[in-house]
Amino acid sequence: MKANAPVAAAELPAQAAHPSRFLALVADKLAATEELFRRELGSDVPFIAEAGRYIGDGGGKRVRPALLLLVARLLGHDGEEEITYAAVVELIHTATLIHDDIIDSAPLRRGRPALHQLWDNHRTVLLGDWIYTRSMQMALNHGRVEVIRKLCAATLAMTEGELLVLERLGAKDLTVDEYFDIIDRKTAHLFGAACHIPSLIQPVRPEAGAALERYGRQLGLCFQLVDDLLDFRGQQSEVGKPVLSDLKEGKLTLPLLLLMPRVSARERADVEAVLDDRGFERVGAERILELVHREGTLDEVAEIALGHAEQARSALASFPPSAVREALEYAPDYVLTRRS
Amino acid sequence: MKANAPVAAAELPAQAAHPSRFLALVADKLAATEELFRRELGSDVPFIAEAGRYIGDGGGKRVRPALLLLVARLLGHDGEEEITYAAVVELIHTATLIHDDIIDSAPLRRGRPALHQLWDNHRTVLLGDWIYTRSMQMALNHGRVEVIRKLCAATLAMTEGELLVLERLGAKDLTVDEYFDIIDRKTAHLFGAACHIPSLIQPVRPEAGAALERYGRQLGLCFQLVDDLLDFRGQQSEVGKPVLSDLKEGKLTLPLLLLMPRVSARERADVEAVLDDRGFERVGAERILELVHREGTLDEVAEIALGHAEQARSALASFPPSAVREALEYAPDYVLTRRS
Repeated sequence: MKANAPVAAAELPAQAAHPSRFLALVADKLAATEELFRRELGSDVPFIAEAGRYIGDGGGKRVRPALLLLVARLLGHDGEEEITYAAVVELIHTATLIHDDIIDSAPLRRGRPALHQLWDNHRTVLLGDWIYTRSMQMALNHGRVEVIRKLCAATLAMTEGELLVLERLGAKDLTVDEYFDIIDRKTAHLFGAACHIPSLIQPVRPEAGAALERYGRQLGLCFQLVDDLLDFRGQQSEVGKPVLSDLKEGKLTLPLLLLMPRVSARERADVEAVLDDRGFERVGAERILELVHREGTLDEVAEIALGHAEQARSALASFPPSAVREALEYAPDYVLTRRS
Repeated sequence: MKANAPVAAAELPAQAAHPSRFLALVADKLAATEELFRRELGSDVPFIAEAGRYIGDGGGKRVRPALLLLVARLLGHDGEEEITYAAVVELIHTATLIHDDIIDSAPLRRGRPALHQLWDNHRTVLLGDWIYTRSMQMALNHGRVEVIRKLCAATLAMTEGELLVLERLGAKDLTVDEYFDIIDRKTAHLFGAACHIPSLIQPVRPEAGAALERYGRQLGLCFQLVDDLLDFRGQQSEVGKPVLSDLKEGKLTLPLLLLMPRVSARERADVEAVLDDRGFERVGAERILELVHREGTLDEVAEIALGHAEQARSALASFPPSAVREALEYAPDYVLTRRS
């Protein structure tokens, strides 16, 4: 089996969901968000302006802004305020990626050299700091303390999640509960905040806020599980990462975590050899892929991801049926079938 | 001349000002700030809790919190709110130091191993992010949007200042104006914010805010000029940095910036050799010290620092005389005579 062979067709829906179905309703707002995102990366400091343009040109799926804008539309908002927050969540996400790429020494991001490859780690750390602070400053434009509280809590959770990844994700005694706690902090909290924030725009809708937060969190868990599954496909051209990058970086994700207690000591040692070596010198990627396919844990994780998608959808049950609700219900399909 | 010989006695007041004279009036509030500072560095993530204790035990001059608390007292406040903000400015300052020490590969901070020496750069970058965000979250406790705005602006300026240090401070065409713009952003803005913020507590005092901001900014410039002068003394045991560390890191500070156009091409080349080599291989530290002593630029910079101290004092003229005003007028002496 080649290292970049697709994983078994069974584990995720084979047909890619079309993003336009999910994004069409807020296409105008997304375009405005994109413009604001680029504008806010401007500065009188030449390096920030230059790196800002590079980031602005890099694209991205813009999943978090799209969700925020759809939820705002669901609640009947049609103004500037949600555009600000949509750009803010994308800026926070961007700052996280910049620091993460330094930490992972990632050569590529979205198929282009990562920032720290073009400039140095030093400036790139400070750029991440600047973007974090800029995003908070922007979020203040509408004077809503509750929004900043939500964003700070999500950002703290994210940073904690990343720290736990470094501390625990390669540990041989990592539990499934811990894994879920880590991906909840690292990924789901910002999805939750993005979906919650529109309920904090006047008129405030606290009852809707709780359901929307649940929707975002469940969708975020689903998103991260799919991310972890995609690492077993390894589509270098699209995500810029070779197959099994996570394991190579010393990270045990759910497909291997489920596998470990079921296989022989010898087979466990093979997985641990990659973890320990941070590479495939003693044990090849094919061997690891062979094990997960034999044990079917990719399919299992896909099932779990589908479960979270279902829970996300059910969190919307209390909202009256509408085209926007339908788009939000469709978002999990988009997440489940993405290929990068 | 030995590399760690004291600079000429003339350039700064010889007698160290006693910090207690500056701090006594807010000793109780400073103790409460210290406790809050430590508490807020707690977390359920083991690494954050552990590193937080290490930071809490590390001490520090706490100049920014002391200023904030004195200004709050000057405006008649005596509550919890100023303690929160005092801890917040110290946390922001702490986060900056953590990232700066990574960038400078500094082995020591306040005489102990820098955080990134005990843990790795990766976790230390994330810890800095976490502390930045935590400080914003804390500052929200009293729901005052204007305070967060001020803190975000100061943090952005600081990050820009640090980036300009990396981009420009070693440039051979650096101008004196640029140098002042850089130290204003890097250091003075946070001093300004610390002194401004108490005027944003109810009842808001906008007219006092402008004068207090000016006081803080001028004091901050004075503080950074003294810092740059101290680098020419190099008291390894106290500040943990050998003499002329700045130059060795490729940074031209004001004493050398003033010197450059006055010396011969050959002498300029000596300074540039250290800048280029990032070390004293070709040209020794003694040679550089000899030049600044001969040209008297340390004394000149000390004069400039005294001028900013005077401007800081004069910004307080509109406040009625009081023991607190006196302590704030004394703060520049404390800054001018510090030895580390």
